[in-house]
This record gives sequence, structure tokens and C-alpha cells, in this order.
Amino acid sequence: MSLLIKNGRIITAADDYVADIFIEGESITAIGKNLPITATREIDASGKLIFPGGIDPHVHLAMPFMGTFSSDTHETGTRAALFGGTTTVIDFVLQTQGHSLKEALDDWNSRARGTAVGDYSFHMAVTDFNENTKAEIKTMIEEEGITSFKTFMAYKGALMIDDRQMVALMQEVKKHGGMVTVHATNGDMIDYLVAQNKASGNLSPRYHYISQPEVTEAEASGRFADISNYTGCPGYIVHLTCEGALNAVRNATRRNQHVFVETCIQYLLLDRSYYERGFESAKWVMSPPLREPKDQDTLWAGINQGLVNVVATDHCPFMWEQKLMGKDDFSKIPNGHPAIENRMELLYSEGVHEKKITLNKFVEVACTNPAKIFGMFPRKGTIGIGSDADLVIFDPNEEHVLSVSSHHMNVDYSAYEGWPVTGKVKMVLLRGQVAIENGECLLQKGAGQFIRRNKVKGII
Amino acid sequence: MSLLIKNGRIITAADDYVADIFIEGESITAIGKNLPITATREIDASGKLIFPGGIDPHVHLAMPFMGTFSSDTHETGTRAALFGGTTTVIDFVLQTQGHSLKEALDDWNSRARGTAVGDYSFHMAVTDFNENTKAEIKTMIEEEGITSFKTFMAYKGALMIDDRQMVALMQEVKKHGGMVTVHATNGDMIDYLVAQNKASGNLSPRYHYISQPEVTEAEASGRFADISNYTGCPGYIVHLTCEGALNAVRNATRRNQHVFVETCIQYLLLDRSYYERGFESAKWVMSPPLREPKDQDTLWAGINQGLVNVVATDHCPFMWEQKLMGKDDFSKIPNGHPAIENRMELLYSEGVHEKKITLNKFVEVACTNPAKIFGMFPRKGTIGIGSDADLVIFDPNEEHVLSVSSHHMNVDYSAYEGWPVTGKVKMVLLRGQVAIENGECLLQKGAGQFIRRNKVKGII
Amino acid sequence: MSLLIKNGRIITAADDYVADIFIEGESITAIGKNLPITATREIDASGKLIFPGGIDPHVHLAMPFMGTFSSDTHETGTRAALFGGTTTVIDFVLQTQGHSLKEALDDWNSRARGTAVGDYSFHMAVTDFNENTKAEIKTMIEEEGITSFKTFMAYKGALMIDDRQMVALMQEVKKHGGMVTVHATNGDMIDYLVAQNKASGNLSPRYHYISQPEVTEAEASGRFADISNYTGCPGYIVHLTCEGALNAVRNATRRNQHVFVETCIQYLLLDRSYYERGFESAKWVMSPPLREPKDQDTLWAGINQGLVNVVATDHCPFMWEQKLMGKDDFSKIPNGHPAIENRMELLYSEGVHEKKITLNKFVEVACTNPAKIFGMFPRKGTIGIGSDADLVIFDPNEEHVLSVSSHHMNVDYSAYEGWPVTGKVKMVLLRGQVAIENGECLLQKGAGQFIRRNKVKGII
Amino acid sequence: MSLLIKNGRIITAADDYVADIFIEGESITAIGKNLPITATREIDASGKLIFPGGIDPHVHLAMPFMGTFSSDTHETGTRAALFGGTTTVIDFVLQTQGHSLKEALDDWNSRARGTAVGDYSFHMAVTDFNENTKAEIKTMIEEEGITSFKTFMAYKGALMIDDRQMVALMQEVKKHGGMVTVHATNGDMIDYLVAQNKASGNLSPRYHYISQPEVTEAEASGRFADISNYTGCPGYIVHLTCEGALNAVRNATRRNQHVFVETCIQYLLLDRSYYERGFESAKWVMSPPLREPKDQDTLWAGINQGLVNVVATDHCPFMWEQKLMGKDDFSKIPNGHPAIENRMELLYSEGVHEKKITLNKFVEVACTNPAKIFGMFPRKGTIGIGSDADLVIFDPNEEHVLSVSSHHMNVDYSAYEGWPVTGKVKMVLLRGQVAIENGECLLQKGAGQFIRRNKVKGII
Ligand SMILES: [Zn+2]
Ligand SMILES: [Zn+2]
Ligand SMILES: [Zn+2]
Ligand SMILES: [Zn+2]
Ligand SMILES: [Zn+2]
Ligand SMILES: [Zn+2]
Ligand SMILES: [Zn+2]
Ligand SMILES: [Zn+2]
Repeated sequence: MSLLIKNGRIITAADDYVADIFIEGESITAIGKNLPITATREIDASGKLIFPGGIDPHVHLAMPFMGTFSSDTHETGTRAALFGGTTTVIDFVLQTQGHSLKEALDDWNSRARGTAVGDYSFHMAVTDFNENTKAEIKTMIEEEGITSFKTFMAYKGALMIDDRQMVALMQEVKKHGGMVTVHATNGDMIDYLVAQNKASGNLSPRYHYISQPEVTEAEASGRFADISNYTGCPGYIVHLTCEGALNAVRNATRRNQHVFVETCIQYLLLDRSYYERGFESAKWVMSPPLREPKDQDTLWAGINQGLVNVVATDHCPFMWEQKLMGKDDFSKIPNGHPAIENRMELLYSEGVHEKKITLNKFVEVACTNPAKIFGMFPRKGTIGIGSDADLVIFDPNEEHVLSVSSHHMNVDYSAYEGWPVTGKVKMVLLRGQVAIENGECLLQKGAGQFIRRNKVKGII
Repeated sequence: MSLLIKNGRIITAADDYVADIFIEGESITAIGKNLPITATREIDASGKLIFPGGIDPHVHLAMPFMGTFSSDTHETGTRAALFGGTTTVIDFVLQTQGHSLKEALDDWNSRARGTAVGDYSFHMAVTDFNENTKAEIKTMIEEEGITSFKTFMAYKGALMIDDRQMVALMQEVKKHGGMVTVHATNGDMIDYLVAQNKASGNLSPRYHYISQPEVTEAEASGRFADISNYTGCPGYIVHLTCEGALNAVRNATRRNQHVFVETCIQYLLLDRSYYERGFESAKWVMSPPLREPKDQDTLWAGINQGLVNVVATDHCPFMWEQKLMGKDDFSKIPNGHPAIENRMELLYSEGVHEKKITLNKFVEVACTNPAKIFGMFPRKGTIGIGSDADLVIFDPNEEHVLSVSSHHMNVDYSAYEGWPVTGKVKMVLLRGQVAIENGECLLQKGAGQFIRRNKVKGII
Repeated sequence: MSLLIKNGRIITAADDYVADIFIEGESITAIGKNLPITATREIDASGKLIFPGGIDPHVHLAMPFMGTFSSDTHETGTRAALFGGTTTVIDFVLQTQGHSLKEALDDWNSRARGTAVGDYSFHMAVTDFNENTKAEIKTMIEEEGITSFKTFMAYKGALMIDDRQMVALMQEVKKHGGMVTVHATNGDMIDYLVAQNKASGNLSPRYHYISQPEVTEAEASGRFADISNYTGCPGYIVHLTCEGALNAVRNATRRNQHVFVETCIQYLLLDRSYYERGFESAKWVMSPPLREPKDQDTLWAGINQGLVNVVATDHCPFMWEQKLMGKDDFSKIPNGHPAIENRMELLYSEGVHEKKITLNKFVEVACTNPAKIFGMFPRKGTIGIGSDADLVIFDPNEEHVLSVSSHHMNVDYSAYEGWPVTGKVKMVLLRGQVAIENGECLLQKGAGQFIRRNKVKGII
Repeated sequence: MSLLIKNGRIITAADDYVADIFIEGESITAIGKNLPITATREIDASGKLIFPGGIDPHVHLAMPFMGTFSSDTHETGTRAALFGGTTTVIDFVLQTQGHSLKEALDDWNSRARGTAVGDYSFHMAVTDFNENTKAEIKTMIEEEGITSFKTFMAYKGALMIDDRQMVALMQEVKKHGGMVTVHATNGDMIDYLVAQNKASGNLSPRYHYISQPEVTEAEASGRFADISNYTGCPGYIVHLTCEGALNAVRNATRRNQHVFVETCIQYLLLDRSYYERGFESAKWVMSPPLREPKDQDTLWAGINQGLVNVVATDHCPFMWEQKLMGKDDFSKIPNGHPAIENRMELLYSEGVHEKKITLNKFVEVACTNPAKIFGMFPRKGTIGIGSDADLVIFDPNEEHVLSVSSHHMNVDYSAYEGWPVTGKVKMVLLRGQVAIENGECLLQKGAGQFIRRNKVKGII
């Protein structure tokens, strides 16, 4: 089985040229002008851009929540991702406090294996770091290929570890070549503000926003940077949303430290005004919440400054009925919004088309950096010889509108309903197979593979 | 004429894979595994790294100085560059105060055209910005393909423009799609300290160092960032050497500004102790001077933080006899040191081999970023289909020692005499022609072309 | 001759108590409850506050300007100051470029001696630092009692010194125990923006504001702090107006530096909206211009943070007819506004009465710090035994309105016309003599003395 | 009963003059030259300095600890304080978790009342903030005259409150006009490092130092500033020791925030080299530990920058036998060192005599600011009419040596054994009574009064 994609404009984090791509089996074996090669199938990509398959390193699929689950399974979520040009996702395994990492991994494997349509990997969320957990770190890295460990500075009693555990975890992870990532918000402050608002009868979704002020994120981001610097363990802040938090990272540069930073597409595009829509605002109840226009400016600038390295989604969709669990109490609204399918198109349209970032930078933050930072490069994240043939054929000019009526995520509304987008994913390949064509997904449930990841060095 | 380079490990700013490269005429037309292509010549690159030809965006060739010239001509300088894996350089045309940019360009062309062995381009140093000069900016950009304008905040009466001119120049350059680069040191302070030291009988080379303290660079870097931010003109600081100056750039990130930063190989590797060698220290008399070990740490960190974008040389060699002009007065020592041939090998050895930076980052700062920032991409700076076949075949393991006895620069000493290096340039191609092979330069004088550059956007 | 002021609430920078003050001759000799002393005259100050006489360390009296003079002479200016509770002012002697400091001092003495009603001292503005000037520094400090040297980073060709001169001056001043003060704005940038606006036909007063953006002050303040730190000479920034500039000072604290900062009453109270009044805006044409509301917040905070040490006026009044010189060209409007009489009442009303600062802080920034910083303490600036009996008896509750119709400055408009004020100067003593009583000035022309000042240490 | 102190050089935070002080009963009623008053007793203070009685706002007397108590009782501690020129101390009442503030206050009162020789007040340490505690805040402020609430960000399980409680406490304290003070170190990190060192067999006192790195204090100081800014409650950091922590406060100035800062005399004078003395280092085991010379520079600079407001002691002495509890385990060494008697003389000698600070600044940070910040002004902290006659007659020239053999603290070693000091406390008055004279304490046990404090405003 071979494939020849002709005349596309190939974009990587570094390159930009028109050429043919030849694919044999699962990987790219040649790139060139007028390659003297015949293939089982030829695809004409004239006038199209070709990107590496997107990598969304922050998604929550079939995540257990209050007796139910986030509404996209590994099947529906990775399928929707493919429709949107994302060929690999990294999902979060959540340790249950009092239980082992292995138990959690088994649980996640039971839902993901044989189910995912696109490729996936796992971060391991360490929610209970103790001597037993410590012993599992090495196993996770060396035997399971899970080299990143997620921590929560919030959600005390459920997910949060304290700074004592954070230091200990970082020392252990550093020792074995892994990375620690963090949901950096001051959980205690937030818990208090939530309780205070509830006690005051402030129960609508906008109090979700009010209970997580910028300072809670800025403080925790600085604290995490401090601990990362102290331990020397590579650190990565997930879903950074605001100026205060990025300034904490900027301050850290003064001591010659490098902290990796991820933002999410919604924080670049949406602002707090979405919390002025009555209970409909529940669609955008996520943590951290949407911020101010000034924070969007900071994040776009941060990308070009080289300080924001990744644009992810924190995709965690819930059906409207699930959101209604918090109808009378914002703190009961399941957190998260659907974006796994929209990330690449939105970032292209609002970033590249609007001339905020270059094409190369687009690929860097949406594809290449996630692969490099998390140990999947060079197999994933780029268009190179020997790399998996994960490709997106993209029409840069096609205008369309995002809508629940056309999306493939398993959720009954769109967070971007009616949003006009320039540029459209036309065709997607996963490891050499046509995954998306003519608006159809051609891959079956289970086509996605688990991607074992390599150790990381903290520099890319 | 075609060429097939087999089995090299190809490194770009984004990629890292083993493949063959096929070259037709001047450019790369295919890259792949076992390409089914025959070529006029095949080169076996097994076990070797292949880099894009290096770009050194800061060199001074045949630069007029006190009735003489920097000792490398466009011929000897670009030839030595090729030996060291640098296929393109950007030289500085210096306007003479009271004269036009065009006159200066003509003067430089008279020395460079038909002379250079490797490819070259020009920055235009604006030393006298007035209404006449202003009218020439557009011409330079649109007709001459010179899109970067160098300014000096030092050397009053010869090269320096004042802040009035800086603002005016930046407004004009921004209007036409160019970039302003800067030698950012406080010339007035330095002039005073030089005069004061001379008046005190402090005449040895170490007073060159003492007359240019860190604050002179930190101050001017901040001032330049301020003016760049005010005018909105893309700005680039050449040869940034120290923590104070990089902190000025870091501060600027807080207002969402992005200033491009270049450092030079010597500031990463050498420190002020070189000024404790009596008059031999004259070899390292350059401006800014070498700094402290803490500044080296800052610069390496800055590269990984994404804040230092380019590693150049400020190559400006003078024969020992020329250096002797300042035997009795440090201020008469011609400024500059030879490095054009050593940059790539030193950066590989001390950066990649010592695990301070990755292979991709090496290519990014030494090849790709200079091309992107200065409008030569994608023709130069990467290994991509359609790009010029400027290639370096590099043995990552060969150990050797730098020395005047083996270098090709036209200067009778080495600034790195005896420096042990791991990794060696084995073969170099320039636009598809073998330039360096078996320690010989196969290209003739005049083989180098002037590279017209595109407008720039200030984002890469 | 003796005086007993009974039952006033005495406020110093440190104290706050009710007591009697006994004055013999020119100075205070006792303070106490029910002092068993009889005096030539008793004054009942029950219910009143008693402040030390205000010190305004930044005024321009009879300042030569384009063939005319600022409209308050040393007589009218110091008399108006007394009406407003300011008993001592420091005026600026301006060296003429090409001439000596001594010549300038003679010139100023010819206008001030025998003329001033209140006490006064001089700063020496060094506008032409050369070997001759250098030799005069010591004389000024040791023989004339002039220990502060004003510099201008703007007004090239008239007042400005370059950074070369700044370093040299600071080294000399430090050597002899003086202080360097600075008008910190980037004159070159401003000159360019002025010229550009004029060339564009932007001639109204608001272009004065537009031609001096915040960055021009922030940049120069940082530069001055850098040079002060490098030389170790105590430094003082006059009329600091904005967040950007104070942030430069805040940054300097990180290297353990202390820069003294003065703001002026207008920058605390008025904002750029005053430049939207057509040509009437000429009343507020001063340099730096009025800024934004956010800058007012910064300055009030700076006072409480201990970073803003002095509130002065930069009093430099011009008659409306004089302002009309710039009717068709904002750059010809004489710079400055009248405030010498209003400072103390405005600062009390807007600062203390509005609870932004404490009573002690009020005295500290308006009286004591100017005396300490500039070497007049403990003779001036406080209410202590042996200090000059310069006192203000102040009714904290009396409400009145500022107006040209009631002020005593020699200028035909008020910059604060109609401004409601709580708190009023009721009586003023200068060296034991009643200067102001019942709305009359009882002192004659020439009653004011020149105050020789001591060397300074840079700490207070 | 009256007293006349003749011809002393009186120093307050603002003033410096020679005069007589007349005292009737407990307070000062007149100050002047040759006061025409006769008194019961006259004291000649010619050639002496007279300071306000020192205020040490951070002492731990008879503090319960592991079944024993810190070795100075309210009697011995306040007596020693008087010998050293400190007339008022603020001790810490420590709430027991699970119990009320009132219970703790009763407990402390049982030890202090009728015992203290000098005056004292209490901070209330809130270690368990809940609904019950919340209700007591108002009572403490309005009925008990305790207006400052101490918090610990360390000592989990014993004293620490979490950030949830910190926000809640600050909101409540702000509402009633109080202030929150903090021991700002990251307790979780420290607990981990202590445990880790112990597990590694690192048991000597130097591991106490190693277990509390600068980052633990810098982080927590920034976090506290963040919460203080968010809530708007006045905040005060006790015993700030290092550059990192002061930089957190400096950063906070950029958002127009003012955080009060206290350092202690030992952090200005002693450094980490004291932890290289084997187990003798236990004498200096305190939290935070002694730091680096660069931190001392920062703290002295911070005083002159106006950012460090108070110099206290954190006096918490333990007998050598008590220190020996940690002979085999640094974590069991009772924390604290004796300094209550040495603070004023050391600060004078090392600060004023060494010309690091002025006489006025000495009084400001050692006497006046503690009184103002904590609501005891103008009764305490200055030499003013109506103030308590708490006075120190000080010989600025007498040289002596600190030693356990001459000190009066109830501890069998000196932390400053052999330290040469210039300047000596000769006589001390407490509320008009001679407390110290000729090296004797003339006051009896119980002479000290509890000082009720006023509400605070957060500005001084
Ligand atoms: Zn999260
Ligand atoms: Zn998440
Ligand atoms: Zn240069
Ligand atoms: Zn150069
Ligand atoms: Zn001025
Ligand atoms: Zn002025
Ligand atoms: Zn403590
Ligand atoms: Zn304590």
C-alpha cells in the first residue's frame, strides 16, 4: 500500500515548500518535486496546505465524573479530533487517591484500548504521591512509556497534591527522565471563594468565573515555577490563561529557568463576556475560566515570544443535560467544553489568517512542540522521512461556520456556534491510512494506537 | 548536474531523520529513503549529520578602518566561512556620515561583487539619517533587496545616530516592511570612560573591557526596546552579551513586545579572564567586550527560553600587526576577532555535544532563524524541497583542535588556539556545488552570489 | 521678641500631639503642655493643625525665557508661597552654555537678593559640563552652600547634557558630597516628535502632550538610575509623573539602589483630559505633561510605598499673554503652570482629607524630606527645638475654593480655578516672624534669606 | 513626681536637636532649651543621645514548647529588653488548634499579667480559622485592643492555616480595622525537606538551614502579598530574611500595593557560616535560618528604600539544655535565639555607627514604625508631648562587648558572644519611671502594663 500526495504546500515548524509526499505503509518515505514514483493511490493537493497531524496534548475522554463520564469516549473523541485535523491526543489517567497508578492505568486502558479511532497517549495524573506511588514512577516511564506526570494544585481531597508531595514527585520524576505538568491554580483560595459565593446565594455560572480570579492562577504558576527550579525537574504548565500567570513564567526567565507553557484555543479567542449569558454560560464553565481581552493579547504575544509553547484544548465535553446538574449551583456544573475538533481550524483562522502568527509557528505550537516536549518526536509532530504519515490536507481559503449541526464531537451544542472560520481540513491521514475524506471518517473504532513516549530532557 | 547524498542524518530546526537528499542544479528536489533516482554523483553520508548551510548574519569583511581594512576580504572571509560550514553571510555596508546609502552600497559592491566565494547579503548601516537618507529606505528595500538597517548607539561622530534619528528611522523602515538592528551600547558613557582611562594612563587592553561595563549595554538595550515598542518597528539587537541586556528584553516581554536577539559565539564561550593576558588580550578586544561567566549562563538559558534567536560571530579580524596599532593605547586597537570559520563547530561542540542545546535548536539559531528573521527563508536556512542546496556534512564524533595553523581566515592568530572541538565539518555544498571537500575549497573567487532579501514581518 | 502658640495640634513627619510652641527670636525653643512661659505675643491655635513651613524644592522664579521671564519674581513668588504655607523654596540657577556656573549664580543673585519675601535656596543647573565647570563644583558645594546639581536629559542645545557629561558630573559631585537631580525625559525623542507634529500641522496644545509620551520619561528615568548606580552618586528625579518612570525606579531597587523621587502636586491631581480644552489647554502645558488616571494611582501608591519622597510644584507661571506666544505653535508655549501657593492646601485636601495619606506622611513629603534630602535639616523642615520657627497654622475643616481672584501669584489665571479645597492656611511664621495673618502678608520684600545647604549623604 | 532630662541630643524618626525633656507622671509634657522648670529629679544627658524607648514587635516570652517554655518569661524577657533600651514588646498569643482565641489569650494573660517588668502587647496568632474564630476577631480588636493577627504558612498540624483560611481571615480582619501578619515560608516544602534530610541521616544543625532554602520564603512572601492584594487587608511580613522574599514585595509595588516588612537584627548581621560550627550551630537554629551575605545587603538597602519598615528580633531563647533536645536530630532543636536585649545596641553600632543608616532611620525602624503600624502611636514610639515617657539615654561612643556574662536574658549563652559594639544604653525610662540606671533594673516585676492597641489603616 502506498500513497502519493502531489503538489501540496508542505508546512512544518521550520519549512514551507511545495512538493509531493510519498507514503509507504505507515510512514513517509520520500518528499520531493515530481518524485519518479508510482503509488497505489495519488492525491492531488494543489493549492492546499499540508500540515503534520495535529497533536492535542490535553484532552479528557470518557473521564469519570460524579457517576457519569465526559461525553466523548475515546472513540468519539479521537474521531472528532481526526475530523478537525488532530491525529494524536494525550488523555489524562487520573489516579484515585488511596489507589495505585497502575490501577488507574488499567481503568483507562479498559476504556481506550480497541476503542480509539485516532492515536493517543496518556499523561499520568498523580493525585496521591506516597512511597507506593513513588515506586511506580520508574515503571510508568520505562515500561509503560508514560513520561509525563500531571499534578493538580487545586481540587483538594480529590486530585490535589500539596507542595510537599510536589517537591518529592519532581525529584523522583527528574531522576527517571520524565516531566511534571501542572494545573496551576490555588485550590484553597478557589475553594474558599466558591464556598463564600454559595453561602451568599451567588449560584449562577458567572460566579464560577468570579471564584477563580487571575491571582489564583498567577500565584500557583509562580509557585510551581519555584519548585521546578528548586528541584531541577522539567516543568510544564497546562492551560495557562492570563497575564499574571505568564508574568510568573517571565519572572522565572530571569533566573535562567525555562518552564514550558501550554495555553488552550479558548483562552486565545473567548473572554469573560461569555459568563454574562445566564445559565447558557454553563457551556463555558471550565477551569481556569475565560479571562479578559488583555489576557488574550498576552497569550498571542507569548506565542511569538517563544514563551507559550503549545496550544491545546483541555477538551472535556459534557452534554447539556450534564451541564444542567449545576442549574442551581455553579459548583456542580461539570467543568469543560468541547474543542478537540475545532482547535486546528480556529488557530489557523484566528492566528495565521489574521496574521497574528506565521504558518511555521502554527505547526510548531499545534503539532511539533507537543511531540517534542512529550517524547513523541520525531515519530509524531512533523512531516519528515520516517515519521508517521499523519497528515492534514488543508484548504486555506474555504470559509465555513462552526456548529453543533456539523461537528462530530459527542455533545449537543457547540462552544463556537456560528463562528466563521477561514480554512478547512479537507483530508486527514493517520499512519498512512486515509482517515478523513469527503467529510467521512474512514477509520474504524480501534484503529487508533497507544503511543509509548520517550524520556524527556527539558529542552527541545 | 545532479547529486545524491545518501543516508545522512538530516537535521533541520524542526526535523531529525535519516534519508537521502537529491539535488538538481542549485536546489534540493527530493528527500527520502532509498530514493529511486540516479545522480551524476553520489555521496555517502552514513554516520554523518547533515545541516543546512550555516548563516552568519553578522560579519565585517574588508571593512574600512583607519586607512586599512579588516583582514578578511569578501573572498577570504566567505571561503573561510565555507570551511566552517557557513554558506551565507550578511555583511554590513556602512554609510559615511554626510554621504548617501547608495554611495556606501556602491563602495561595498566594488569590493564584494565577483569576489565572494560564498553567498552574501548586506545590512545597510544608517549612520546619518536625514531627509535624503529617508528617501533611500524604500529604494533599499524594494529595489536592492536590503531589508535590514543597522544602527549604532555608540561611536558618536562616526557611526552613531541619536534617538531622534532612531525614532524617525524606525518609523520609515516599518512603513516599508524592513527591520532595524542595533549595536546597543551607550556610546556617550563609553566615550567618557575611555577618555577617563586614557587620561589616567590606563592604556592596556583590559581598560577596553573596563570602559564598557554591563550597564552601558543594558541601558541601551532597554532604550532600543522602548523605541521599537513605541514605533512598532521590528527590532533586533546584535551581539547581546550579558544578563543586564537580556533582562531588558525580558522586561519588554511584559508589555507583549518581541525583540529579536542575537548573541555571538564568543559571548557564549569566552569570558573577561581573556583581558588578563597583557597586550595579547588585544586579540579579544571587541565591542561589547567579553563578559562574566554568569552572562554565559544567561545566554545559554536565553537560547532555550526562545529569547535569544541567533548565534552569529561579529567576525571582524585584524592581523596582529593591525592590533599593534593600539600597543600604547587600547582605544586604538582595531575592534573585532576572527570567528567566521569557527562558529558552527564551536556551537555544536559546546552546545549540542555538551547537551546545553538540542540539535534542532542548533540549526534554528545558526541557520534557520537568521534566514527567517532577515527575509531569506525558505531559500536559505533549511533543508527543504526547492531550497538552495546549501548543506553541511558533519561528523559529530571527530575530535580536533582549533588553530591558526589549520584555519583559513586571513588572520595570523586564532582566538581559540588549542580549543578542543568535538564534531567537524567534512563537506559543504553551496547551491548544489561541492564547496568544501577533503579540506579543500573547490569554489572559485566570485562563486558567491548576492542574496536579495524579502520584506520582514517581525514574526517568524 | 517671643511668641507663644497655644494648644495647636502639632504635626511633624513623625509626631502628632497637642501642645504649645514657644519661639524666641527666629527659632523654636520650647514645646510643651501649659508651658510656664510668657511671651510678647500669644496665639491661640486651638482646633488648628500646626505644620512645619512647607518646602517646595522645585520652583522657577523670574526665570529668563525668550526675552521675558516667568511671571513670578522672587518677591511675588515667595510671597505667594507664604500665603500657601510654603516658607522655603529652592529655585534653579541655570548655567548658560558656554558660561560658568558662577556667572549664572551672579545673575540669579542679582534678581533674588534683597527681593525674596520667603526663604530660598538654589539648585545649580549644570547645562555645560566641562573642565571649567568641573572645577566649580567644589566651590559651589563648599563655599556657596549649593549642594544639588540639576541636569536636563532634554532641551538639546540649550540645557541638555549628554550621558558622557552626566557620568563625569556625577563622579565629581559624589566626590564632594553633593547630589545630582534630573529632568529625566528623552529629549531627542521629544524633539523629533515635536518636529514631526509641527511638520504635520499638529499645532494645538494637545500635541505638546502627544509629543512627550510616557516612554520618553520611563526610558530616561531608567537611564539616569543606571548612571547613578554606576557612579554611586546620590540621584534624585524631579517631577516624576508616571507608572513607567516609577517602575524604572522600582526595578532599580532590585539591585539595592535607592533613587530619590519627587513628583509634583499637579501629577497627583490633574490628568490628560486638560489637553482637550482647545488653546485654553496652554495653561497646563508643562514638561512632562499631565498623564493618565492610572499614573495618579501609581504616584499616590508610590508615596505610601516610600518610593516617592517629595511633592513639589515645578512652579513656573506665565501670564496668559505669554502663553499666547504659542497660539499657533504648541512648541512656543512657555512651559509651566502656577502652583506654588496651592501645593500644601491641595495635598492636604486631596491627600489627607481624602485619606490617601496620613498627616505624618503629608509633612514628610511636603516639608521634611525636601529639607533632609537637600541638606537644610534640621534647621528647616520640622518643628523641633532649635529649628527655624517656620510654622503653618492650618484649619483642617475650612472649605474654600481656589481661584485667580483670591490667589497671590503673579499670574492672571489659576490652574485650579474653582477647585474645592478642605483645609486652609490661616497663619504662617517665617523664622519667628508672622508672615501671613488675616489674609495679609506682613513681611516686606527682602525679608527672605538665602539658605546655605549642607553636604548630603544619599540616605535620610 | 517629675523629671527633667537636661541637654540630651534628642532623636526621633524625624528630628535631631539638643534640648531638655520634662516629664510629669508617666508622660512628656515639655521639651525645650533651658526650660524654666524645676523637677523632682534632674538628669544630665549632655553628650548623650536620647531615643524613644525601643519597640520590639516580635518576641516570644514563656512560649509553650514541647512541655517546656522559651526560657525568658514575661518578667525576665521584658527586664532584659529594658536593659537593652526596648521598653515595649509585642508577644504572640498562640491559639491552640481546636480551641478559641479567648482561651489562648487567657492562657497568655495568666503568664504575663502582673509579671512583665516592661510594657507589652499581644499579637493574636490565628492557627485555626473557622466560624467560631471568625466571630472572635471583632471582639479581639474592639474589646481586647489586639488588632494584629499572626498567621503561619508553615508548621502544618500545629500552627499553619491554609490559603482558604488566609483569605477568609483577611476579609474578616480588614472589615474590623486590623492587620494580618505572617510567618511566610512554604511549610509543606520545608516539612518535606526536613523529612528527606532526616531519612538520609542528615541530622546536624546545618540541615536545618538546608531544609529552608530561600525559595521557601520567597514563594510564600509572594503568595501572601497576592492574597493581601486580593482581599485589600493590610499585610505585614514578619522576619523577612532574603533577597528573594524582598523581591516578591518589590514586585508587588508594581501593582501599587504596599506590604509592610519586618526584618530582624540577626538577618542584618549574621550569615549562614554560623551553621558550620557543629552542634554549637544550634544556638542559631531559628526559622527562617540565617542567610547569605548578599541577603544582608538586600535588607540594609531595603531599609533605606523604605521597603523594610521594622527591625525586630523574633526573640525566642532556649537554654542550652533545651537546645540539646535536638542533639541527634536538628528538627528537635527548639527554634529561636536570644536578642531582645541586644537589638538596639547592635542596630546602632552596625547601622548608624557604620553609616549604613541615619539616626532618624534607626529610630524609625526600631521605635516609631512598630508603634504606628501596630496602633500604639502616638502613645508609644516617639518623643512627643503627651507620649509615654519611654526614653533611652544612650552613649554613642562607649565601646563594649556583648556576652552572656553581662546580659540579662535568661539564657546561658549569647548569640553574639564577644561582638564589639560602639554605643551603649545608659539609662532607660518607662512611663516616667527610671527603669535602668547604673546597670540596675529599678522596676519591679509587674511594673509593665498591657498596651491596648488601636485599629490600623494600612498606611503610616
Ligand atoms: Zn486543569
Ligand atoms: Zn484538563
Ligand atoms: Zn557592534
Ligand atoms: Zn559588528
Ligand atoms: Zn523639568
Ligand atoms: Zn522645573
Ligand atoms: Zn516565625
Ligand atoms: Zn516568631
